[in-house]
Amino acid sequence: MSSLTLSIDAMGGDNSPTVILDGMKIFLQDHPDVKFLVHGKQDILAPEIQSRGLDNVCKIIHQESMVSMSAKPASALRKAKGTSMWGAVESVKKGDAVAAVSAGNTGALMAFSMLALRKMKGVYRPAMTALWPTINGRCVVLDIGANLEADADQLVSFSIMGEAYARAITGKKRPTIGLLNIGSEDDKGGDTLRRAADLLSDPDLGLDFRGFIEGNDISMGKVDVVVTDGFTGNVALKAAEGTAYLVASYVKDALTENWLSKLGAVFASAGLRKLKDKMNPSRVNGGVLLGLKGVVVKSHGGSDAEGMASALTLAVNLGASNYREEISDGLLRFQDSSSVSELAAE
Amino acid sequence: MSSLTLSIDAMGGDNSPTVILDGMKIFLQDHPDVKFLVHGKQDILAPEIQSRGLDNVCKIIHQESMVSMSAKPASALRKAKGTSMWGAVESVKKGDAVAAVSAGNTGALMAFSMLALRKMKGVYRPAMTALWPTINGRCVVLDIGANLEADADQLVSFSIMGEAYARAITGKKRPTIGLLNIGSEDDKGGDTLRRAADLLSDPDLGLDFRGFIEGNDISMGKVDVVVTDGFTGNVALKAAEGTAYLVASYVKDALTENWLSKLGAVFASAGLRKLKDKMNPSRVNGGVLLGLKGVVVKSHGGSDAEGMASALTLAVNLGASNYREEISDGLLRFQDSSSVSELAAE
Repeated sequence: MSSLTLSIDAMGGDNSPTVILDGMKIFLQDHPDVKFLVHGKQDILAPEIQSRGLDNVCKIIHQESMVSMSAKPASALRKAKGTSMWGAVESVKKGDAVAAVSAGNTGALMAFSMLALRKMKGVYRPAMTALWPTINGRCVVLDIGANLEADADQLVSFSIMGEAYARAITGKKRPTIGLLNIGSEDDKGGDTLRRAADLLSDPDLGLDFRGFIEGNDISMGKVDVVVTDGFTGNVALKAAEGTAYLVASYVKDALTENWLSKLGAVFASAGLRKLKDKMNPSRVNGGVLLGLKGVVVKSHGGSDAEGMASALTLAVNLGASNYREEISDGLLRFQDSSSVSELAAE
Repeated sequence: MSSLTLSIDAMGGDNSPTVILDGMKIFLQDHPDVKFLVHGKQDILAPEIQSRGLDNVCKIIHQESMVSMSAKPASALRKAKGTSMWGAVESVKKGDAVAAVSAGNTGALMAFSMLALRKMKGVYRPAMTALWPTINGRCVVLDIGANLEADADQLVSFSIMGEAYARAITGKKRPTIGLLNIGSEDDKGGDTLRRAADLLSDPDLGLDFRGFIEGNDISMGKVDVVVTDGFTGNVALKAAEGTAYLVASYVKDALTENWLSKLGAVFASAGLRKLKDKMNPSRVNGGVLLGLKGVVVKSHGGSDAEGMASALTLAVNLGASNYREEISDGLLRFQDSSSVSELAAE
């Protein structure tokens, strides 16, 4: 298979395989050369693929079962073989696809990916990313849930991984990095954060580290990469999602307040369409478990076809980039500089 | 002095004393019986109070200095005496006022309050609250920054304090409580959270504990009291503030996109005014350091006069309520039930 093949878990997510196949069709408009290995039930998938005219770009790989959205990672692992998710990840392992995409159970996908693809050298724990909309585009936030806690060394490795990832998807040469804290002064936060900030300031790492940032700085786009532990990152991301939903409901109320408001909304419809577009979570769909020897993109379980197309775009961009080599190099620099510091401290 | 006297730090915050005195004037429209002890520079305050016709409700207590917004708590403590902030807190300690309000330096205000007012019996560490707008009103979030970390016992004491506080300000008889986590299943999160959840489920505590909630549940109003450690709470609150600001900027762009959009905004102005009102952070202004033998309300440093009026309303409601007795009783019940469990475990 060519380097432009993606492996798809066609049975994961809330509205599979419909949303997934529709997303592939949208994606193909901009990426006509990409081919798919589609994992799932042959008898369900074949007619759906045919009816969308996707026969010539899809190869179905039959999988008898699927991972339920509510399964615990450990129990999913025991029954991994024969599921569409396991198949999708395994195609990446075998080198048949440059990246896998699944909208299925997040915990199971992380477990499958770690087992099948293994960690890169120098990675102690992989980290899950999110794309976060900002006033000037979007930024990368990690970890958002793969690790409840993170020590200083882990936060540095998250920074190295997040920076290479941000470069691959934004094209910025030197993405800036901020450590999430509850104040921007140097002496704020606990020992772990202060120690991580010290390590990140080492010029040998070659990172553009901007120090501590606060929660409100994320949406303001103060840095390209926001680094934190998985608990804090997950809470921050979901708190922001809840707030966006709340404000959107306020706006809806405002524009349906009375007939005059509704008329106003008609006049303002061009701008409001753009607003809706900006607020659409599909724009920033796609999380990646960084630190593995292979690319697996997690699409939101409730995503629509547009969102699936975003996740596929992310997957193909990452598959074509050399961010994993950059991560390896960065982690190596970190290990070298740590060894030097340890020697100096002796 | 009567029970309806508030003590005011007239020199704290970004636009003092203007915003503070304007806020008092707005507040008095609904609370004509309240009197003020106004701490600050006599020569600055006297003409400002007179020009607003507030002479008959204000008594100026001259303080020579003030706490700078950037001072560290420890350094502010060394120079506390003679500042408007210290004076305001001391009036509560002396029993001359039912509550103090300051828009000044948060760290200094927490330090002054703890030193002057002391902790209530059974409180290991006080916790700072925030009011958070939700789809059905507002909820209380604590801790938002007084404690970087919190063990299970502390999370229980935050729950007890937050519940009594929520009852005092919302009038709900049994406010519901949720523990902030990265999943709502029982087995999610670390040991500390699971242990706290176990403790909170003890019926002897008399709390309406609803289990774990996630970040997005806060704005959805899933519970009345959201309990977390100060680091997570602070990041979540600020991440939400940043998101609200981002979405507001999107809405503004949408309604000024072209002349038709602008015309639409004119038609929709009634609804949009309500939207602006809902988005106004002044509506939910006011944080309280719970667990002290006295009420001190922190108003946002950049708040406007409306926001100051909200903080004053919070202060007078708390001053008139018996939430501190309820906190004492609740903490006692927790200690009793802990002792029983310990005996049972022996």
